[in-house]
Amino acid sequence: MKKLLTLLLVLPLMVNAQPEQPVEEWTGKTILVIGGHPDDDHQSHGTLAMLKDHGNDIYILTMTTGNVGTKDPKISRNQLSIIRRQEQLDAMKEIGLSAEHYINLGYDDGRLEFADREEVVGKLVYYIRKFKPDVLFSFDPGYNYVVWQKSDHRAAGYLAADAVRAAEWRLLYEGQIIHDGLTAHAIPEFMFYGGNVSDKNTTVNINDYVENRVAAGMKYVSQWSSGWKDYKGPDLDKYPPDDREAIENRVRRRIFVKDGISYERFRYHKGPPDTMGHGPRD
Amino acid sequence: MKKLLTLLLVLPLMVNAQPEQPVEEWTGKTILVIGGHPDDDHQSHGTLAMLKDHGNDIYILTMTTGNVGTKDPKISRNQLSIIRRQEQLDAMKEIGLSAEHYINLGYDDGRLEFADREEVVGKLVYYIRKFKPDVLFSFDPGYNYVVWQKSDHRAAGYLAADAVRAAEWRLLYEGQIIHDGLTAHAIPEFMFYGGNVSDKNTTVNINDYVENRVAAGMKYVSQWSSGWKDYKGPDLDKYPPDDREAIENRVRRRIFVKDGISYERFRYHKGPPDTMGHGPRD
Amino acid sequence: MKKLLTLLLVLPLMVNAQPEQPVEEWTGKTILVIGGHPDDDHQSHGTLAMLKDHGNDIYILTMTTGNVGTKDPKISRNQLSIIRRQEQLDAMKEIGLSAEHYINLGYDDGRLEFADREEVVGKLVYYIRKFKPDVLFSFDPGYNYVVWQKSDHRAAGYLAADAVRAAEWRLLYEGQIIHDGLTAHAIPEFMFYGGNVSDKNTTVNINDYVENRVAAGMKYVSQWSSGWKDYKGPDLDKYPPDDREAIENRVRRRIFVKDGISYERFRYHKGPPDTMGHGPRD
Amino acid sequence: MKKLLTLLLVLPLMVNAQPEQPVEEWTGKTILVIGGHPDDDHQSHGTLAMLKDHGNDIYILTMTTGNVGTKDPKISRNQLSIIRRQEQLDAMKEIGLSAEHYINLGYDDGRLEFADREEVVGKLVYYIRKFKPDVLFSFDPGYNYVVWQKSDHRAAGYLAADAVRAAEWRLLYEGQIIHDGLTAHAIPEFMFYGGNVSDKNTTVNINDYVENRVAAGMKYVSQWSSGWKDYKGPDLDKYPPDDREAIENRVRRRIFVKDGISYERFRYHKGPPDTMGHGPRD
Amino acid sequence: MKKLLTLLLVLPLMVNAQPEQPVEEWTGKTILVIGGHPDDDHQSHGTLAMLKDHGNDIYILTMTTGNVGTKDPKISRNQLSIIRRQEQLDAMKEIGLSAEHYINLGYDDGRLEFADREEVVGKLVYYIRKFKPDVLFSFDPGYNYVVWQKSDHRAAGYLAADAVRAAEWRLLYEGQIIHDGLTAHAIPEFMFYGGNVSDKNTTVNINDYVENRVAAGMKYVSQWSSGWKDYKGPDLDKYPPDDREAIENRVRRRIFVKDGISYERFRYHKGPPDTMGHGPRD
Amino acid sequence: MKKLLTLLLVLPLMVNAQPEQPVEEWTGKTILVIGGHPDDDHQSHGTLAMLKDHGNDIYILTMTTGNVGTKDPKISRNQLSIIRRQEQLDAMKEIGLSAEHYINLGYDDGRLEFADREEVVGKLVYYIRKFKPDVLFSFDPGYNYVVWQKSDHRAAGYLAADAVRAAEWRLLYEGQIIHDGLTAHAIPEFMFYGGNVSDKNTTVNINDYVENRVAAGMKYVSQWSSGWKDYKGPDLDKYPPDDREAIENRVRRRIFVKDGISYERFRYHKGPPDTMGHGPRD
Repeated sequence: MKKLLTLLLVLPLMVNAQPEQPVEEWTGKTILVIGGHPDDDHQSHGTLAMLKDHGNDIYILTMTTGNVGTKDPKISRNQLSIIRRQEQLDAMKEIGLSAEHYINLGYDDGRLEFADREEVVGKLVYYIRKFKPDVLFSFDPGYNYVVWQKSDHRAAGYLAADAVRAAEWRLLYEGQIIHDGLTAHAIPEFMFYGGNVSDKNTTVNINDYVENRVAAGMKYVSQWSSGWKDYKGPDLDKYPPDDREAIENRVRRRIFVKDGISYERFRYHKGPPDTMGHGPRD
Repeated sequence: MKKLLTLLLVLPLMVNAQPEQPVEEWTGKTILVIGGHPDDDHQSHGTLAMLKDHGNDIYILTMTTGNVGTKDPKISRNQLSIIRRQEQLDAMKEIGLSAEHYINLGYDDGRLEFADREEVVGKLVYYIRKFKPDVLFSFDPGYNYVVWQKSDHRAAGYLAADAVRAAEWRLLYEGQIIHDGLTAHAIPEFMFYGGNVSDKNTTVNINDYVENRVAAGMKYVSQWSSGWKDYKGPDLDKYPPDDREAIENRVRRRIFVKDGISYERFRYHKGPPDTMGHGPRD
Repeated sequence: MKKLLTLLLVLPLMVNAQPEQPVEEWTGKTILVIGGHPDDDHQSHGTLAMLKDHGNDIYILTMTTGNVGTKDPKISRNQLSIIRRQEQLDAMKEIGLSAEHYINLGYDDGRLEFADREEVVGKLVYYIRKFKPDVLFSFDPGYNYVVWQKSDHRAAGYLAADAVRAAEWRLLYEGQIIHDGLTAHAIPEFMFYGGNVSDKNTTVNINDYVENRVAAGMKYVSQWSSGWKDYKGPDLDKYPPDDREAIENRVRRRIFVKDGISYERFRYHKGPPDTMGHGPRD
Repeated sequence: MKKLLTLLLVLPLMVNAQPEQPVEEWTGKTILVIGGHPDDDHQSHGTLAMLKDHGNDIYILTMTTGNVGTKDPKISRNQLSIIRRQEQLDAMKEIGLSAEHYINLGYDDGRLEFADREEVVGKLVYYIRKFKPDVLFSFDPGYNYVVWQKSDHRAAGYLAADAVRAAEWRLLYEGQIIHDGLTAHAIPEFMFYGGNVSDKNTTVNINDYVENRVAAGMKYVSQWSSGWKDYKGPDLDKYPPDDREAIENRVRRRIFVKDGISYERFRYHKGPPDTMGHGPRD
Repeated sequence: MKKLLTLLLVLPLMVNAQPEQPVEEWTGKTILVIGGHPDDDHQSHGTLAMLKDHGNDIYILTMTTGNVGTKDPKISRNQLSIIRRQEQLDAMKEIGLSAEHYINLGYDDGRLEFADREEVVGKLVYYIRKFKPDVLFSFDPGYNYVVWQKSDHRAAGYLAADAVRAAEWRLLYEGQIIHDGLTAHAIPEFMFYGGNVSDKNTTVNINDYVENRVAAGMKYVSQWSSGWKDYKGPDLDKYPPDDREAIENRVRRRIFVKDGISYERFRYHKGPPDTMGHGPRD
Repeated sequence: MKKLLTLLLVLPLMVNAQPEQPVEEWTGKTILVIGGHPDDDHQSHGTLAMLKDHGNDIYILTMTTGNVGTKDPKISRNQLSIIRRQEQLDAMKEIGLSAEHYINLGYDDGRLEFADREEVVGKLVYYIRKFKPDVLFSFDPGYNYVVWQKSDHRAAGYLAADAVRAAEWRLLYEGQIIHDGLTAHAIPEFMFYGGNVSDKNTTVNINDYVENRVAAGMKYVSQWSSGWKDYKGPDLDKYPPDDREAIENRVRRRIFVKDGISYERFRYHKGPPDTMGHGPRD
């Protein structure tokens, strides 16, 4: 019985083949990560650290400033926006990425869903055409069915998907091509995170980069330490003695480990953007 | 074989635990029900009657006036709006709730999907912050995947979910906090109705309140009797002789009965709003 | 094991019964096909050719002009719009439909998602009320869960669904009724294409109309031949010698064949529009 | 002193020349009247009656249904919409125009300002391109300065102006040209009503058509008789005895009379739409 | 010559008669003041102080929180929102109005122009129908021509005007009437401030209330003292020694004085809302 | 009498003083020109040529691509967008400005009015904060009253005005400040073109730069030569023999000449942006 269930869950893996070239061997690729908030990219930090180390060029684009999510009554939206930016840059440093590789669209946290979609998609299209990524990392908009996600993640998922589709047509957002010197670009490969576990078809061995991921994760002090309720700056030494261990545990616990090896799991897709969300259809 | 199928369908029950304290024992809680139309709350009327009887404080908020759904050619939108309000108040009376416990946002039926989402969410946030519910009853936005629903129900589902998320942050809709004397509020528990049966994980024994539910349901004369096509007022005596029995049968038939006991089924969720729509993910 | 999987996939077929009267026997019906782009209707061309031949009255409504999807750097949006219109009319001719049976709403390809939804739905409602179809063919918005689709298909799916719901109420878009001489209309039957294979519950034997479908499909020269990258007009003789065979193969390959018989597969639904997207619920 | 003031007010008359061919001699022209509500065209009814009589082809397009403006508590929006339509058709009959010459866009009264402007302008462009008018009659958007008007009139003014500008470009709303068989059209002449008296530069002698105007005006029973508060149908005999005289007086009083001759006054403009709102500029 | 110019400027005064009953004699009226920001009402504080003293009931409604306008780099949006609220309440106290008479809609300063107009107008309509004012004080939307104003003032002007028009129709925002127990209300009189001086037709002698106005104005410490650049709380003693005099001078200087008497000037309008913006027209 | 009229028209000149330092003496200033279409800046080309020559740093920002305004049936939107860009760069060269000084926001011509205002204003704010201009050149939004202009000019006028106001507040579009390294900026001086002649208060002697202006103007071949109807490329030699003279005459005719000296006229404003549209008010 258990075997059958396993088989059922494994089914999608057979439909969506793993990348021909294992992710662990990728090099020379340009990679764009699109997320909703500073820290959304964290669930790929092991993979990104490895890819950076292997000579790939990585950009992280965050749509909102993350300027809302705190329970500390003293902090204003702009203060939080500044804190989250610094945490993001500090975390990126741990996986080998400098500030030049970070783009933030500046939307208010929690309000991305209300922004004008044609404009937001246009901004994403701009960066896709500018960086011309070989691979996009983003929230999984869902396989065969739409995955339910919190407001900004939902928006991040479908806006990224829509932007990928739009970016490949020179007749859409053509002002960018004529006036900003860009050209249309079709992203050929995708690594989706954050979707249902049953939809994952690719695991990446991040064993050698676990410590980078952990060090990066521990930078999100305002989110995952007691700084969530009482922010005292980026230095964990200024927090209650247990905080450092607590955040480290929290960060480590989120890593998927099997047979002693640490992995990050993705739904990998190769092919035209139009087919990113489903299996073969009539 | 049948056993396997059962097991497959039952799986989610194991993932989302039932409420620790059975619903039948709840008392002293504040409960907010958010629905799209007058009568959307009916599928919980047994549970609500019981909860009211057990000393819980219940508010029903309906987003639209229900001013469109009739096949009677004589009735105008405003007449229907008035009829539906009275039916709703009459039904609420049968489950122990007075008019003070009813809020209607006044949107046109069938047009909620077109309203400005930032404004609609803001109004829901207002009432969540005002009543500070311990439990939210609403349409199930879906478990792991987005449930497909008719336009207003779809809207009611995601708007309620978005409002729950926004309500907990003091940095969103902060004008309400500064100028209307409210404070941020995070709803801790959820009872979702209207979703897929396979997603249900909680049954509530409503045996002692079936008659309240039936009496309440029979108040929706303009919806479930021949008043749907030829409205003659709220008094069933004015309708064709079979109507009373027909509406009663219709109302009773919608109740789930197993081994002679009547139940209402929900997807129960406890935890941060962000996780209301899915199981554990990486 | 295989039997079990089959059974699992077949399950929906038992829930959503096939049409009582087989599609192959339909006659005298009015049929409206709503699609996002010129060619979205192609996956039903065998069925439509048969239905036309059997005395049904068929209208094809396309929401966008398809004026974006080309890799030919010489073509402008308006040129493509003209080309796609002609291809659509040529394809329709092959299945027996004249230009009078084609409506195009004129929206830009890739931008339907950004158009004002109340207005787009209103235009669809207008044509539903004007033609009063017995059957609607459209993208499957999804069964029990929302199907993920590319932007315009997603929009085409839910906008058509919303329009079907709105069209039946005389109190919605009532200006059309009072000022344009229309009446409310509820479409009773639906044939959904483009959804997940596991949701299909109806197969139509198109064996006698395969050649019509193939001939129609071969008219989409700008989409499925090398005209995609280098458009030379509608005449396949002007293209590289292999092109004719390539497009024919491509068109034939998309037809589902079992035991030597060609079929088109649909999710059929009968009943009120509100229930089109799900099985029975509490 | 008085002479100076007169001269000051008359100044614009010298800037904007009167029509070369007096309006009284126009024939064979196609004329489109765009208004916000049923009755907005009334202030031109004398001129329109004359023009119709002189062999011009006249279409009246009204953007809203006028379904709000009543103080009669018994009337619903749709009833008012029907009443206002009939009054409009009855009034048009008095000036020689049949129902085929009336178009109503169906927007709710009082809500035109909230409708999607790109869509409303598109609908106006459609009719401009279809009728290809030689002259447009509409609310004066203002000369040199924007005239302040009530919400729907304001909207009617600028939307009509925007539509005139858009209609002349084949690269705007091009779906209408490619898919609906229309062509771009530039309206060469304009007659603006409803603006400031000091901006008027053209008077039309309607002496022979005063009775047509009065008869037409007396059809707006729900607006200008006691039917405003207590509507009893279109027949004035069913109203209090004074009503007929009262409405007639009201209608007559609005006519500008000088030296015993009745006139309607307009701001006439000839030239490209871009210059309709101002005098020569650098 | 000078006489002529005077006469030209005075002309509107003759067209729009002053209130029959001088403002100085008003009593028992309900008055609603609608402004864009906390302090927009200040230019009427003398008149309001007098009216309050004479037994009129006054409500001040501000659309935005004023949470942007500061040059002090230390202050956040929410802090400013709180400061401005307190200043407004302190100022109102000086003219005799308690906090119960203050309503703030909570919109962000500088972003009112981007809010959904149907929703903002609806909120204003709600308060007009709730308070049923005899007189509205608001920004002058302009006489015969639209006055140009900064973004939020422009919005405040036309939104208030639109709301006044909508409030009188029971068929607009009818959900408020059916579900919130309100009734339609037409405001009969208007006092417009902030428009062009040449449009003023009414002066109010505020000689006895100048000190109230000055005391009220001196409460806007964060706007008109050095607190604009370096906010130190509401107590002027905490600011540089010159500040108190400077703010007092500034506040006094804005008062119009003629022949030793202090006045506030308005454009007064009486009649249906539709005619508030212009003189008689054909 | 004529003297009086002159005096009346001259009045605003006395109210709005000319710049203290004559424009002819400006040097070292940063100047931003915001226009709706390529060529809107032409009416200031003499002044800009002089200012460039005098050591000022000038940027021209155009909101739309000008991709609609042609009567040549062969040209597509994108072709026109490319042509207009090149003409603009060629014209700028004649007045001393390189391509690095040109920004185009890429909006479709004729559709600026429909774009999301919060986003468009945000883009303008971005460039104002980036260039930190001392002087803004833009369409005159109007003095005391709103000037009526064609759709895109109207939009260009008020959007620029709104952007100027927003740019000075660090609490608006604050994502730009935190994430893009910009700071708030208040533009102190304004030169408005395109408004009513009677509102002009500043004349600039462009006698030495007339030939630059003429040479620049003659680059707009697709707009002001027979290329308007039949475009043959940028080289005037390819057009009918009269074209060169015709376009030159046209360009020269638009220059205001008095007593043999050529001028460009502006409404100059100095002071806070809030007061840019009106004289002193109470």
